[in-house]
Order: sequence, then C-alpha cells, then structure tokens
Amino acid sequence: MLSDKRRIRDLVELCYAAGLREVVLSPGSRNAPLIISFTGHGGFRCHTAVDERSAAFMALGMSQANRTPTILCSTSGTAVLNYAPAIAEAYYQLVPLLVLTADRPPHLIDIGDGQTLRQYEIYRNYIRLSLSLLPSDEPIEDNIRIASTAIEAATTPPPGPVHLNIPLDEPLYGQRDYSQEPKPTFKAQPPHPTSQHSVLPNVSSVPYRKIMMLWGSLPPDTPTTRAVEAYFKAADTKAIMLSETTSNTFHPQIIPHIDRTLAVIPPDQRSQYAPELLITFGHNIVSKHIKKFLRQYRPIEHWHVTDTLVYQDTFHALKRTIPLSPEEFLEWFGSLRLEGDETYVRRWHEAAQLAAQRHEEFISQAPFTDLTAYHEILTHLVDPTIVHMGNSTVVRYFQLYPPNPRHRYFANRGVSGIDGCSSTAVGHALVSGQPNILFTGDLAFGYDANAFWLNQLPDNLRIVVFDNGGGSIFRFIEGPDTTPQYEPYFVTPHPGTVEGIVRRYHLPHFIADSEERLLPALHAFLRERKPCPVLHVKTDGAKNMQILRRYFRYLQNPDAAALQELEAS
Amino acid sequence: MLSDKRRIRDLVELCYAAGLREVVLSPGSRNAPLIISFTGHGGFRCHTAVDERSAAFMALGMSQANRTPTILCSTSGTAVLNYAPAIAEAYYQLVPLLVLTADRPPHLIDIGDGQTLRQYEIYRNYIRLSLSLLPSDEPIEDNIRIASTAIEAATTPPPGPVHLNIPLDEPLYGQRDYSQEPKPTFKAQPPHPTSQHSVLPNVSSVPYRKIMMLWGSLPPDTPTTRAVEAYFKAADTKAIMLSETTSNTFHPQIIPHIDRTLAVIPPDQRSQYAPELLITFGHNIVSKHIKKFLRQYRPIEHWHVTDTLVYQDTFHALKRTIPLSPEEFLEWFGSLRLEGDETYVRRWHEAAQLAAQRHEEFISQAPFTDLTAYHEILTHLVDPTIVHMGNSTVVRYFQLYPPNPRHRYFANRGVSGIDGCSSTAVGHALVSGQPNILFTGDLAFGYDANAFWLNQLPDNLRIVVFDNGGGSIFRFIEGPDTTPQYEPYFVTPHPGTVEGIVRRYHLPHFIADSEERLLPALHAFLRERKPCPVLHVKTDGAKNMQILRRYFRYLQNPDAAALQELEAS
Repeated sequence: MLSDKRRIRDLVELCYAAGLREVVLSPGSRNAPLIISFTGHGGFRCHTAVDERSAAFMALGMSQANRTPTILCSTSGTAVLNYAPAIAEAYYQLVPLLVLTADRPPHLIDIGDGQTLRQYEIYRNYIRLSLSLLPSDEPIEDNIRIASTAIEAATTPPPGPVHLNIPLDEPLYGQRDYSQEPKPTFKAQPPHPTSQHSVLPNVSSVPYRKIMMLWGSLPPDTPTTRAVEAYFKAADTKAIMLSETTSNTFHPQIIPHIDRTLAVIPPDQRSQYAPELLITFGHNIVSKHIKKFLRQYRPIEHWHVTDTLVYQDTFHALKRTIPLSPEEFLEWFGSLRLEGDETYVRRWHEAAQLAAQRHEEFISQAPFTDLTAYHEILTHLVDPTIVHMGNSTVVRYFQLYPPNPRHRYFANRGVSGIDGCSSTAVGHALVSGQPNILFTGDLAFGYDANAFWLNQLPDNLRIVVFDNGGGSIFRFIEGPDTTPQYEPYFVTPHPGTVEGIVRRYHLPHFIADSEERLLPALHAFLRERKPCPVLHVKTDGAKNMQILRRYFRYLQNPDAAALQELEAS
Repeated sequence: MLSDKRRIRDLVELCYAAGLREVVLSPGSRNAPLIISFTGHGGFRCHTAVDERSAAFMALGMSQANRTPTILCSTSGTAVLNYAPAIAEAYYQLVPLLVLTADRPPHLIDIGDGQTLRQYEIYRNYIRLSLSLLPSDEPIEDNIRIASTAIEAATTPPPGPVHLNIPLDEPLYGQRDYSQEPKPTFKAQPPHPTSQHSVLPNVSSVPYRKIMMLWGSLPPDTPTTRAVEAYFKAADTKAIMLSETTSNTFHPQIIPHIDRTLAVIPPDQRSQYAPELLITFGHNIVSKHIKKFLRQYRPIEHWHVTDTLVYQDTFHALKRTIPLSPEEFLEWFGSLRLEGDETYVRRWHEAAQLAAQRHEEFISQAPFTDLTAYHEILTHLVDPTIVHMGNSTVVRYFQLYPPNPRHRYFANRGVSGIDGCSSTAVGHALVSGQPNILFTGDLAFGYDANAFWLNQLPDNLRIVVFDNGGGSIFRFIEGPDTTPQYEPYFVTPHPGTVEGIVRRYHLPHFIADSEERLLPALHAFLRERKPCPVLHVKTDGAKNMQILRRYFRYLQNPDAAALQELEAS
C-alpha cells in the first residue's frame, strides 16, 4: 500500500526506477504520504532520524559511501531549514542528494497557518536545482515530468543536492493498492558522453619546466591511483606531486605532507619551490600554508582539471579549467613527454625527506599531547578502514602523518563546518559494510551529539575524540592566544562534554589521558564489539599548542636546545 | 580595546548607542573582530553557545523577554545556516534579532576556500532586511550608514530579524584603543507615529450582530487586558471573545478554552455559533478546530487588527486589515455602541460552562495520563511564572486548562518547530530574572539537547518533560494509528532520551511515572534549588491517546458508560 496521492506514488516509483535505495526520513505529519509510500513500497532501505540536521548529514554520509543520491524527506517548516547545513556541505563537497520537503499547499502559506514558511527555492544559494511538484495530482504527466527532472538532476553529474518541494493538502494518511496499475517509466538520459579530445588544451608543448600537481579532495577507489602510476612510468620528466589525505590518491612519488614539507624550506629559498605551471585535481584544499605559498609565489599558469565543471580559482591564477577526469588528463599530459626540471623535482623530494626525518625525531621525544597521540593511534590503525576526519584541527593534524593507502579518507571539507561530522560518519557506516572510524574533537562531538540518537547504532563505527578543552584550533592559529581575556569566547571549554555524551548513549568508553594509558586503552577500544566505542584522548590544550608550535619550529630549525626543552616539558 | 577594523568598532558602538545590550556569540575565527569588540567594549552582556542553532534560539528567547533585538554573531559557512531555523521562527513570531554573520571577502568566495558559501541574502525567504557591510573600512561613512540602517530596521516595528553580512579579511585579531576618538552617532528615527483615526474603518455602524473576537499570540504586559476590561464595561452588547493561552490576554468574559468548548457543540447546531463578523488580534492561532470551524462557517467579514502590518487571511475571509493596536481598536469599537445579539453571546458562554463542567467530571475520574498530569501540575503552579510551552502536543494540551492571569505564556508558534523550544526557554530565563518553567515533550527535549550545553545554566528555569514514547501528536491526529506498521517512522520512540540528557548535564531529576509519585515528585521539583531541575513525567503513549479521545467524546456526549469505562481503564 502506498499513499493515495497519485503524484507521491509516481515520485516514489520513479526514485526506485532510477536506482535510488536509501531514504532518511524524519517524522512529521505533512510528509506522511511520503513516509507511507517509501516505507510501504518495500524496495527502499528507510532510516529514521528525528533531528533533521543530523538526518541530512547522515544522508550525506550515505551518498559519500555509495555515490548515489540518498533521499531525504522532511515535514514542512523549520525542519526544512535544519537540512540546510548538510545541503550546503553536499553542494560544495559534490555529493548527490535528493531533498524532498513536504509543504502546505499555496493557499495556506503566509496566512498564519502552523509549521509554514516560504519553502520554494529556500536553498537557492547552495542547491543544484530547485523544483516543486504541483499542489494537485493532476495533470499526472506534469508531475511525472517534474519528478523525473529532479531525479535526473540528482543522478547525473555534477553531483550535488537537488530540492523538490511538495505541496500536500489534508487528508494525509490515505492509502491505495496500485498493484494492478502500470508504473511510470523513468527515462534516464543517455550516459554522459566520454570526454572528447577537443576539450584538451590546444597545446603540443608546454613552455614550463617547473610543474606542480596538487591533489585536493577526491572520492576514493577511482582509477586515479593507477593513472598516477602510469604517468610516473611514462613521463620522461615528472612533475612534482603534492597531495592531501582527502585526495585518496597514493603513490610513493607523491608528497602527502604539504605543511611539514613547506615548514622545512628556509624562507629565503621558498621562491625556488614555486611552480611555473600548477595543475590541480579535486577540490577544497585543506592546507592554509600551500594556499598562502601559491598565492604569494603565484604560478604563471594554473590549470584546474575537473570533470565536475566547478570553477576553482583558489590561487587567483587560474588560466584553464580542463573538463577531464584526472585519469584522462594524466594520460594526455604524460603523452606530451615534457622535459621537466629535475632539480626542481629533486629539491621538493629532499625537503620532504628532511621533514620526514625531523618529524620522526621530534615525535619520538615529544611528551604526551595530541601530536603524539595521533601518531600512536594512526600507527596502530592497520586494517583497511574508512577514516572520517572531523573539522577543524583533526583534518589538519592528519596531514602531518603518512596516509595509509589501504584506508579511505573522508572529511566534510565542502564548507568545513563542525556541525555534522559525527552524523556523516554514522550515515556512511550505516551503508558501507566496512570498518569505519571517526576522529573528532570535543566541540564537534558535542555539537553533533544527536548523531547517535538512533534506535540502532552502526556496529562498524569507532570514534576517537580528542578532548583538549574545546576549540583547540583557536589556540593554534595566530591571534586568540595573544588576547587571553577573550579565551572563553573562542576556546569555549565545556568540561565533561565527552563524558556527557558517552553517558547519554551508554557508549563504551576508553580513556587515554597519559602516554601510559594510551596503548592499553587503544587496544581495548579496537577490540570492543559493542557499537560506537569511544576512545577518549584527554590532553592539555595549552600544552598541545606549545608542542605543535615547537614541532613546526623544529622542522624549520632543529637544534639540540629544542629537544632538550621537550624532554624538560 | 576593540578590533582595529574601524567598521567593526563603529558597528559595535552604534549597537550600543541604539540600546542593544545582549549578545550571543558563537566561537569562530572569521568573527574574531566582532567577538573582540563586543567582549572588549564593556557595555554588552556577552553569552556564548557553540551550537549556532541553539545560540539563535537562545537569542530569540532573550528578545522575547525584553522585546529588544538580541545580537547574534557567528563565523562564516554552515554556522550561518544553523541560525536559519530560529531566524524563520523570529520572522513569523515577530521577534526582533540583529544577525551579524562574518563572511570571507568577495574575492575568496566560490574559489574553494574553506568555511565559505554564498551568504549574501541567504535568509531571503524569512528575513525583514538583508544588508552587507563593505569589504573594507573605507568609506567610513558608507559603513556607518549601512550599519545604522540594519540597526534601525531591527529596532523599529514591525519586529523581526535583520541580517547584516560582514566580509572580513585577515589579519583578524588586531586591536586598537579608540578612547581618544569620537564615536559614531546613532540617529534614531522619530518614534513611530501614533495611529491616526484616519486609519479607522470608515463605518459609523456595523450591520452585523453576531460578532466574535479571537485572540491569538500576543506579547504579555501590554495595555490589552485593561482595554478588554474597558470594552466590556463600555459596550452595550458585547462580542463573544475567544482566546488562546498564547494571547496573554485574560478576562472573565473571555472564553480561553476553544477546543473543549467547540467539542460540546452538537454538530447540527454548529452553524448557530458562526459569527457574521470575525475580529482577530495577534497571530498564529494554535487551535486546528477553530480554524476548521471558521473556514467551514465562514464569517461574512473578517477584520484583522494589527499594528505590525502582517497580512493574515487565516480563514480565507479577510476583508480589512486594521493597523491599530488592540487597545486603540477596542476603544474605537466600544465607542460604536453596537447592538449585538445577546442570544449568540449567551449561547457561547453556555457551551463554555458545559465544557468546564464536563472537563472537571472527566479529569476527576481519568487515570494517570498526560491529561491528568497537566491538570495536577498546572493546579500547583501558583507563583507568577513565565511559562514556555513546547510544540507540538504541549501547547495543545495547555488550551484545555484554565490559564493563570499571573503567568506569562510563550511558545514558538511562528513556525511551530520542535527544534528550539529548550534553547528559547534558556535564553528567556537568562535575561528575565523571574521564575521560568518549560513544558516540553521527549522528542523536543532530545532534539534541542544542546540548549543546556553552557558553562552556566540559568538558575531560574525548571523543565517538565512529558515522556510518552516519542511523537505523541502522531498518536492523536487521525491517521498514523490506523497504519500501525508505520508507527516507528512517525512516533520514533527512543527509550531513555530524557534520562540520557539528564545524565549528560547532571540535571536534578524527578520521576513521576504514576499518580502516586506525581505529587511528591512535583513538590520536590518545585523546591529544588540547583539549576534546571527536570520533572520527568512518564506516561503510556497509547493510553494517553485513548484517554484524550475519550475526553473529547465525553465533552460531546457524556454518559455513564464513558465514566465506567474510565474507571476500568
């Protein structure tokens, strides 16, 4: 049995025909025809979350995992606005969502009726497409056309969120058996045409010899890594490649430690590291240092390679946007057999090696802080795992350690909010079937506490929370620590946040508040079989900042004094 | 010391000059110039909340309490979107807010920088005014003009939220001493002109004799109650007046029980209760029954009296919007000395008395359920208290019991979401200085759990949570109970939600899960001196629904069988 509202039944059948399977519902009355139809259809996996903010981030996590639009379904009113943060994140992270919002019919809007606001185009600043079904079932064909357009937009590149607003009048709970009636047909567009060589830059040679390729956020398990291997085999002289963990692109010749490598380069030699041609893949570069470096030593040309058509003039030097996948680009670029500047490439690798050596030296002697705790935990995380990196310090710390090619890395770097890190990991774990681990901070864990407000928690998700007295990013960035009287307004310590959430949900809880307790707690945490165990790493926020600053000073200029200082701390 | 960004210093001084005093900050880096300036100024009371959704509802509660715009201040990115639910609620509830959102400068938007989205006019569907400061301090006078316009819009009627987006570039933490420099002057507009008689309806007599006045949501402590008294003294024959608790307008001749009074009217006599002229005050009528009744028996004319200029054709019969305050209108309307229909007025009062009698009979015999628990608690709530009614069942239950003219009643009935009920009450309590009590349900309490994520909880707020297995409104409205297989998707029971939040924050916890335990728990709860004690009323959701349905059947047609049934239950 489905809703007796024909246009809702048609929408649901079209979603099914288009291959959508995951639905995140939030309870409501106005969306009852949708709840009845998705749950009654039998072909969908329906999840429920009361807090729409959390529901939407869960859906984002699901779409991250299976790269198919997850269906979101809410009642009218502020419920719709609680979806907004995750929709904006999906928009800038290039993750597909089909957002269905129930609405009152037009004659009940702005007349003082309850749970009503102007929902049409409410997400317009951060949505791929906004449509509305008609307020009535008739004309049937028009509703089918509108629903099909929304589904098609959600299922074809570029990936992103699509909004379909649905005016619904009472009665809302009627049902009907459609088993004897034909279903609407979803006419998928012909598949995206494979790229034509006509879109290749019209160049037979490239006049630049210092070439840098920079890898930003990309989904894992694409052919990119193989293409990188092929490129390094084929190209006569190679570009230097830098990557971030979020790129999910691994190769021994890629330098995956941008910040620590930049740190060892003496200021007066930095210009020698500047590329003439910068080629970027993926999006949403995490490293502030590389952004600063490339905006200061601006490349002569910046080419951005993307098949998602996003314009990204991150360094204010963009000359070309090349609508190819990274694989297609690398195949073509390798075939140019460019003569590169070997000294330039070697210089970068030497800096990276120096940074690696100093990193090891420093870490081996540093006292128990976030810096050493990350090192220990990541060293022990050997099984292939889907790693979720929270904003805002977590994802930055990750860039200091070697990425593990067996892992897959995700972070909400579209808009980089802390608001949905936990819910995204929960959603991802619910559909991925592989081990997942979330690294987050105490503020983000507190912010998104409703992520765990579910009837059944995923049994393949572990959570590491760095509890350092709140907002440690504000301790590290220049500024707030020079204005100590304002510390409460930036750092916002909330003692007991992690304990409180662990208590709220009865999550297994392993405390690591010293070097001695870290390894036993980590082992117990990794062995725990109950859902969502929490490894609670308690460190001192001020000391973290002090050590991290010393770490970067040591990278730049190691001397015996610095290490002695460490031993004394 | 304030921010060295001149336009931020000027904005902050203008806010102070305009009389704004309460600021709710959420930590961030982009908004550091604002945080530094508001906290460094010395003239503002600065509150901090990490979760911007909760922060914005707190600000809404503060503005409810002092009817002055509260300043909200967030960093860029999804933080801005987490404000959206409370801004929409403020827009439809007519509550003033000044929303300051830090933004990146234009050249860093849509190029892949972090924590960035298109913030300009992001709230456009539900905002009184959207402006943006310039990206630079110069020209100084232009920034002063823009800031003044925003502040003026926020401080003059109609009350509502105003958005000022603020592009800010690094460095963000610089400070400066302005003590030797002149401050910008805030030039307030001349006060709102008092209403002219020219806006009065051009009528010397009104041809209708069946006149109903309906009181929707209004702020308390206005001269309205005195105007009602004067009207009843002056008018020869009176209109019938119906009110909701949210009207904060009390008089012995006002019927404050719409739903239960409508319930006793036999269906075949309902047309006799229909008004010819309907006059409404306030906004956001709660009762679905009166809306249905008045849309079915549509008045010949509907006049909406409002000095906030909101168009409210709630019953699809609006003939005039009269831009007067309720007091001004009643003075004029009383002076018309209309001859009303006494039978019509008496008929309504007889129905109300019958309803009161049957209400008492039923309650005195009903078993322990939400219906009887409300009765007991409200009977014992004798001290003057600010009462916050949560959505969605809570505010409906309240309409069944006599309002207490010593209390003040508030509810988020602008958009009627459950998302911010707790935070609104917390914010209201933080500035009101009087005893506050929040009545909420387990889903709303869980949804807004971050309301209590503060370093210091208000010591003048008590919380009653009705824990009936989640979403009991869905048990009561027609529909979901006839589709039992879908119950998990509507009712969404989360066992342990209330206990979990109480555990998270160590709130004093008083359980009332039976008739016997209710009174002792209530007394202990009312005596508790620690902040935010929780009276946890545990009832059976299915039984609540059964008893509430019987209650309405009993109002309509009391018979011995119904009471015997009750005794057996």
